[in-house]
Amino acid sequence: MKASDFALFGAKPKFASPVPVGQLYFPSWERYEAAFRGIFERQYYNNNGPLHEELEARLRAFLGVRHAILVTNATLGLMMTADALGLFGKVILPSFTFVASAQSLTWAGLKPVFCDIDPDTHQIDIDALAALIDDDVSAIMGVNLWGGSCNPHALAELAQAHGVRLYFDSAHAFGCEVGGQRIGGFGQAEVFSFHATKILNATEGGCICTNDDEVAARLRAIRPSYGTEVPVPVLRVANARMSEAQAAVALMSLEDFPANRQNNELLYRRYEAHLAAIPGLRLVRPTGVTLSNYQYMVCAVDSEVFGLSRDMLTGLLRAENVVARRYFYPGVHRCIPYAEQLSETEARLPNTDSACATSVQFPIGARVSPDAVDRICEIIGAAHKHAAEIRSRHDKT
Amino acid sequence: MKASDFALFGAKPKFASPVPVGQLYFPSWERYEAAFRGIFERQYYNNNGPLHEELEARLRAFLGVRHAILVTNATLGLMMTADALGLFGKVILPSFTFVASAQSLTWAGLKPVFCDIDPDTHQIDIDALAALIDDDVSAIMGVNLWGGSCNPHALAELAQAHGVRLYFDSAHAFGCEVGGQRIGGFGQAEVFSFHATKILNATEGGCICTNDDEVAARLRAIRPSYGTEVPVPVLRVANARMSEAQAAVALMSLEDFPANRQNNELLYRRYEAHLAAIPGLRLVRPTGVTLSNYQYMVCAVDSEVFGLSRDMLTGLLRAENVVARRYFYPGVHRCIPYAEQLSETEARLPNTDSACATSVQFPIGARVSPDAVDRICEIIGAAHKHAAEIRSRHDKT
Repeated sequence: MKASDFALFGAKPKFASPVPVGQLYFPSWERYEAAFRGIFERQYYNNNGPLHEELEARLRAFLGVRHAILVTNATLGLMMTADALGLFGKVILPSFTFVASAQSLTWAGLKPVFCDIDPDTHQIDIDALAALIDDDVSAIMGVNLWGGSCNPHALAELAQAHGVRLYFDSAHAFGCEVGGQRIGGFGQAEVFSFHATKILNATEGGCICTNDDEVAARLRAIRPSYGTEVPVPVLRVANARMSEAQAAVALMSLEDFPANRQNNELLYRRYEAHLAAIPGLRLVRPTGVTLSNYQYMVCAVDSEVFGLSRDMLTGLLRAENVVARRYFYPGVHRCIPYAEQLSETEARLPNTDSACATSVQFPIGARVSPDAVDRICEIIGAAHKHAAEIRSRHDKT
Repeated sequence: MKASDFALFGAKPKFASPVPVGQLYFPSWERYEAAFRGIFERQYYNNNGPLHEELEARLRAFLGVRHAILVTNATLGLMMTADALGLFGKVILPSFTFVASAQSLTWAGLKPVFCDIDPDTHQIDIDALAALIDDDVSAIMGVNLWGGSCNPHALAELAQAHGVRLYFDSAHAFGCEVGGQRIGGFGQAEVFSFHATKILNATEGGCICTNDDEVAARLRAIRPSYGTEVPVPVLRVANARMSEAQAAVALMSLEDFPANRQNNELLYRRYEAHLAAIPGLRLVRPTGVTLSNYQYMVCAVDSEVFGLSRDMLTGLLRAENVVARRYFYPGVHRCIPYAEQLSETEARLPNTDSACATSVQFPIGARVSPDAVDRICEIIGAAHKHAAEIRSRHDKT
């Protein structure tokens, strides 16, 4: 490949259609049609339908938790969990996360306090977090990133020592294991996302797991705006019901989880073999787990060594129809309303800023073939090789 | 029918399967299958998909509004609207409404102030509302009840006179007209519910309508947690995306709206003809509209005259598999957290308390036949006729 072969400079894109990031698993038409025929025949579409109940039971068994409470999406799940745990004042969480982690606190009337991350793993820097705990803090929200974990055992010890609650945004971590134990049962609650881009796909959806019966009872009262009775009083109710249509897809996705996970791992290993040889690219591997879902393929770009900035690499890949993306960007502490609310000290999160500036997510999941990985890595390798010429051509345009 | 013929006293229920309240319309399997095959083939499941875009366009045309913004449910729609309108302090709304109307304010950090209703129409008592406006009030949330309206023109005049914003919970009012104009374009915004029980059915869902481009831009930024860009800055973001699966059902439901509305009206007229003759039952007709969706069949029970209390009548009908229900009950001002927060004066809403104590909702909608209406009314008539004996038998059990 020469510099003039890049689609960025007018050549034909290497992929005829976009290669997406995100799991994007879907069952066959035969299975999908059969599931939806059942829904149609039962004429029951939401509110604890039979598929909904089956999915909750299967998730309880799969995750080894007392309660798996389905919700229409993970953002609502996090909002409800903050309320059901009776939080007040401040909650500490990393800023290197999806904006909804912090926004769930803002809806629940709580103040997010952002902690920095470990530059190598992108997971919470536990010492930095510990330094932020004061009397106004009522909880820690751990975020399990990139199919890895933020060390739930260490966080549990810290939370217990300070008498604060602990729960997790585990949107990235469905099916992952810490010391052989599936993520889902740590802390007082864990929230999963079942968005189409996640390894467990309800097209859109989520699940709150807890082993605490009282928290579960409150969550079940909040989810349907009480429903027809007031089972337990709660401060706020919401509409967070998962439909039968969502549960149907999630059930098939759960059945196929082992195959999807294994396929992701094969793709991941293939990336690893190719990219290890390219200077200036560092794989951010899923850490802190004994089993990963390999749902993400993330690299940090050292632009000096690689030869191109992260944004130049992303733009170059996008021109080839490879939907690489910077993620997360910007850090939540740089978003409205937090950017305006934080003091200079509170907003000093150098490792987060650096991760936001250098991270790139490459395609992995059900719509990515091993051959596609080979070709993507070939483009990345060529980008490094011809970096100087690419920079010079780019500057001229 | 004799007293011993009632299922409440052990006779066989008059209906073999439950006759539900709620529209519960659904298209044929052929149409449903075709729509879902399309979704499957496009492999695109949420986030402004083609059916989503088509539904927004059709709703704009149908309702005559600049923006129809689909959401995953109406509760989220109301929460987002409060934020997008930049509300602060207090918002006045009736207490005789679904709890989510008030709860949307609580999530948005606002204080609900409850006004009483007109005892005849169940709509907002506009004089009572006017008396509650003070400097801390930033908006009025009108609630269009029972396929009728709360007089948007009078409320607009009041809101303008006091410099406060006006928006509507129009969950009950899809397709209704005020002075020949479709509900949806009044005030700064209106929020519809597309729950399965509503005349426009997305199985679950909703829509925010507004003619204000800036409000619409904020709503579109909030709905997908910004999405991949930050189009306009907002205080809070959420996940309120409507899926293709929801939009598909809503599109078919919109196509069949005229037929469903007409069928409801026929059923309503049939109830009217039967019930007018029964002492102690007063129909709460859809008022303030030139066209109603007749989505609700509501009566107020005068227990002295009818002979049985509302709750006795409801229980008696439920034993016959007629899913009549008290609705709304209790009034929102009697629910946690408001019950604990309101002063005695603030909680003095005698017409609301009376409506909560006497209202009953009878089955109407796609799953109710004219014959079923005849038989339901026959049971109600017999209940009145044998009221003394029913009371006496009931007291003994």
